[in-house]
Amino acid sequence: MQTRRQLLTAAAVMAAPAILKGAKGYTWAEVEKILASGKVQGRLTKDDLPTPALLLNMDAFEANVKKMSSYVLSRGRGFRPHGKTHKCPNIAHHLVKNGAVGTCAAKLSEAEVFSANGLQNLLVTTAVVGKYKIERAMRLATRRPDTIFVVDNTQNLRDMNDAAAAGKIKLNLAVDLLVGNRTGIRSGDPAVALVEAMQSLSNVRFQGLQAYAGHASHVIGFEPRKKKSGELMGEAVETRRMLEKKGIACNWLSGGSTGTYNIDSEIDGVTELQPGSFMFMDVDYNRIGGSDGNAHYSDFANSLTVMATVVSKPTDSIAIVDAGLKAFSTDKPFPPETKDKMPVTYAYGGDEHGKLTLGQGAHPFQVGDKLEFIIPHCDPSVNLYDKIFCVRGDKVEATWAIAARGMSQ
Amino acid sequence: MQTRRQLLTAAAVMAAPAILKGAKGYTWAEVEKILASGKVQGRLTKDDLPTPALLLNMDAFEANVKKMSSYVLSRGRGFRPHGKTHKCPNIAHHLVKNGAVGTCAAKLSEAEVFSANGLQNLLVTTAVVGKYKIERAMRLATRRPDTIFVVDNTQNLRDMNDAAAAGKIKLNLAVDLLVGNRTGIRSGDPAVALVEAMQSLSNVRFQGLQAYAGHASHVIGFEPRKKKSGELMGEAVETRRMLEKKGIACNWLSGGSTGTYNIDSEIDGVTELQPGSFMFMDVDYNRIGGSDGNAHYSDFANSLTVMATVVSKPTDSIAIVDAGLKAFSTDKPFPPETKDKMPVTYAYGGDEHGKLTLGQGAHPFQVGDKLEFIIPHCDPSVNLYDKIFCVRGDKVEATWAIAARGMSQ
Repeated sequence: MQTRRQLLTAAAVMAAPAILKGAKGYTWAEVEKILASGKVQGRLTKDDLPTPALLLNMDAFEANVKKMSSYVLSRGRGFRPHGKTHKCPNIAHHLVKNGAVGTCAAKLSEAEVFSANGLQNLLVTTAVVGKYKIERAMRLATRRPDTIFVVDNTQNLRDMNDAAAAGKIKLNLAVDLLVGNRTGIRSGDPAVALVEAMQSLSNVRFQGLQAYAGHASHVIGFEPRKKKSGELMGEAVETRRMLEKKGIACNWLSGGSTGTYNIDSEIDGVTELQPGSFMFMDVDYNRIGGSDGNAHYSDFANSLTVMATVVSKPTDSIAIVDAGLKAFSTDKPFPPETKDKMPVTYAYGGDEHGKLTLGQGAHPFQVGDKLEFIIPHCDPSVNLYDKIFCVRGDKVEATWAIAARGMSQ
Repeated sequence: MQTRRQLLTAAAVMAAPAILKGAKGYTWAEVEKILASGKVQGRLTKDDLPTPALLLNMDAFEANVKKMSSYVLSRGRGFRPHGKTHKCPNIAHHLVKNGAVGTCAAKLSEAEVFSANGLQNLLVTTAVVGKYKIERAMRLATRRPDTIFVVDNTQNLRDMNDAAAAGKIKLNLAVDLLVGNRTGIRSGDPAVALVEAMQSLSNVRFQGLQAYAGHASHVIGFEPRKKKSGELMGEAVETRRMLEKKGIACNWLSGGSTGTYNIDSEIDGVTELQPGSFMFMDVDYNRIGGSDGNAHYSDFANSLTVMATVVSKPTDSIAIVDAGLKAFSTDKPFPPETKDKMPVTYAYGGDEHGKLTLGQGAHPFQVGDKLEFIIPHCDPSVNLYDKIFCVRGDKVEATWAIAARGMSQ
C-alpha cells in the first residue's frame, strides 16, 4: 500500500506541470476586486493571476533572508541589503525586521521612495550630481538625518557641503572608492586627500568608505572570486589603514555582494555588506559556483519567477508563451529557464512572446497552460513590474508594490 | 565674412555638447511643481529634467508620422500603427489625427489602457487566452464594438464565440497566420478550415487575416528584405485568394512593419499596415539598409533619445553616466550610441551606470555634463519609463504618460 506522500508524489509526476483551473470559480470581475482590495490571502491562487506575472516564493525568500542575515551578523558585520534589487518597501521592511541596519538605494529617486514609505538609515550608493538633485538630497537628509551619501570628487564634495550649509544641516558623507570598474576615486592617496578635504568642511561628517566591487561577485568559481574580491577589498582596507595612521577615524567600510558575502565577511576591516540578489537569485548567480566546489551556486534558493501562459502552439514541438523582452531582462547571454527544470528551451520571440522548443519527454503543452521561469538577471527584471505576487505553494499571500520601479534618476 | 549659419555651425562644433545650466534659475521645488502641473511648455528646458530621461524630439517625430502616414495612405492601404512601440495614448491620438484608422495593441491589458484613454478601432494582435482574459475581452468588445481580436486555433475560437454568445455580442475576429516564427495558424488549408469554422458560429464576424512577419522587417539590405517579406506575405495573399475562391469575402489583410512599409504596401492583397518603430527609430533599425542602397536606413529620423548625466570621471578617458541596464533595452548585440555621433563608446556598467570611453577628439566630459543617446531597441526601452518628455530644440513642450507601460498581460 502506498503512503499518502507516495501517492501525492506519483500524482505530481504524472500531472506535471500542474495546470490549475481557478479552483474557486471566480469571474474576472471578482478577481479584479480582490486584487484591488489588496486582501488576497486565502482568496486567490496563482492560477487567478494575469500573466506574465512576477512571483515571489515566500518560503524560499524568507529562508534566503534568514540565511544571509544570520551569516553576516554572526561575523559581526552590518547588513544593509541593496534596494536596487527589489525596489519594494515591503521587502525592505522585511529585511529590517530580520536584522538589516538599513537599506541601500542606487539612486536618489529610489531612496526618496524608500523614505516616503517609512524606511530609515538609507545609503545612496551613487553620487548625487547637479544642482536640482543636490537640493533633493538636502530635502531627504533633512527628513532622514541618518541618510548616508557618497562622493568621489572635490567639486561634488564642495557642492554638497555648500548645500548643507545653506540648509543648516550636517550631511553624512562617505568616500566612494574605485574598486570596481565604475564610479569612485582611486584608493590610497587620492582617496585620503578627499577625506582630508572633507575634514576641513563644516557641514559634512565623514562616515567612512564605500567599496562596491559588483563585478567581483560574478567571477566564476569560489577560489578565483575570493582572490579577486580579496585584491579589491584589500585596497579599501589599506586606505582605511592609511586614514587611521593619519589619525582619521574610519569606522565604516561598506561593500560586498551576493557572490562574495562569505568572502568579504571574513576580511578584517570590512564592516558592512550590501548584498541584494541573494533574496531572489537568478540564472546568472546560479552559475557562479559555490564554496563547496559545485558549479551550481546553491547557497541561496531561486525564489523569484515569472509565470507565463502558452498562447499559441504552432507545431507539436513549439509552444509560444506570452512573455518576451518586456517580461524578462535580456542582458545576459543565456535565456530564462523553466523553474521545474523541464526539457524545454526558451528563446526570446520578440517583445511580447517567448518560443519554447519542447525536448524529448517534455510535457505536450497546450494553449492555456501556465509555467514558471527563473529569470536571467533579477534586478532589471523586477524593474519591469509594478507589483510582485507573494506565493506560498499555489496560494497567493500578498501583492507588494514595487514602488521604486523605474526610479533610476 | 562668415554667414550667420557658418558662425552658428562653428559655435556648435566648439561648444558641443551644449551644457545647459537651468537657464531660468529654478529651484527643484519649482521644477517639481511645474512637472506636476503638466504645464511645462515655455517653462522648462531639457536641462531642467532629472536624468536618465526619455526624450521625444517632436520635429523628427512629427515628420516621421507624416511620412509614414502619407506613404501608406497614398498606396490605398489602412494605417494602424502598433501601440506596443509607444504605449502612450497621446501618441496614439496624434497618429489617429494623422490618418491612422486605429491602434494595434500587443496584449489585452494594453488595449484596455488605450480604450480607457478614448481610443477606438483597436486591434489586439495576440490571441486572448484563458477564462479571465476572455471575460476581459468581452468587456472591451462591449465598450468598443469596433475592436478586432485574433485567433489561431479552434478551441480558442469556440471559447471566444461562447463568451460572446453569453454576453450577447458579436465579435470581430481575424485569423492570425503563422508567417513569422511566433504565433498563428499555418497559411493555406489550415487557415481556411479555421475561417470556415468561424463562419459556422453565430457570435463572431470574420474580419480577415493578420499576417505579421516581424522578423522580415529586420532583414539587412532592402533586396533580401523585399524577397523575404514577399515570400511570407505571399502566403497570406494566397490564403486570401483561396478563401475568395470559396466565396468567403476577405477584405482585410493586416501586416507590415517599419522595415517593410515600402515593400508590403506594394503587394496586392495587403490592405493594412501596422508599423510602430518608424515614429522613434533606434540603432537596430538604423542598420537594416534602405531602398537607396545605403547601409544606413534613413527613411525615418531618430526622434527618441535617453538623456544621461556624467556622475563620475574615474580617469581622463573614462566617464560614467547614470544610465545602465535599467535605462536602455539590452536585447541587441550593440550598445546605445551618442545622438551627436561623438567619438565615445558606451558600454553597460551594470544596472545603474554606463561607461563611456572617450576617443580621440572627444569632449573631455566632466561630472554634471549631460548627453543624449540613441537607444538600441525602442519598444522595450520605452517600456522602462513612466513618461516621455516632448522636446523641440532645448525646450520641453509636454510630458506624456506612457500609460500602458508594463501592460504585457
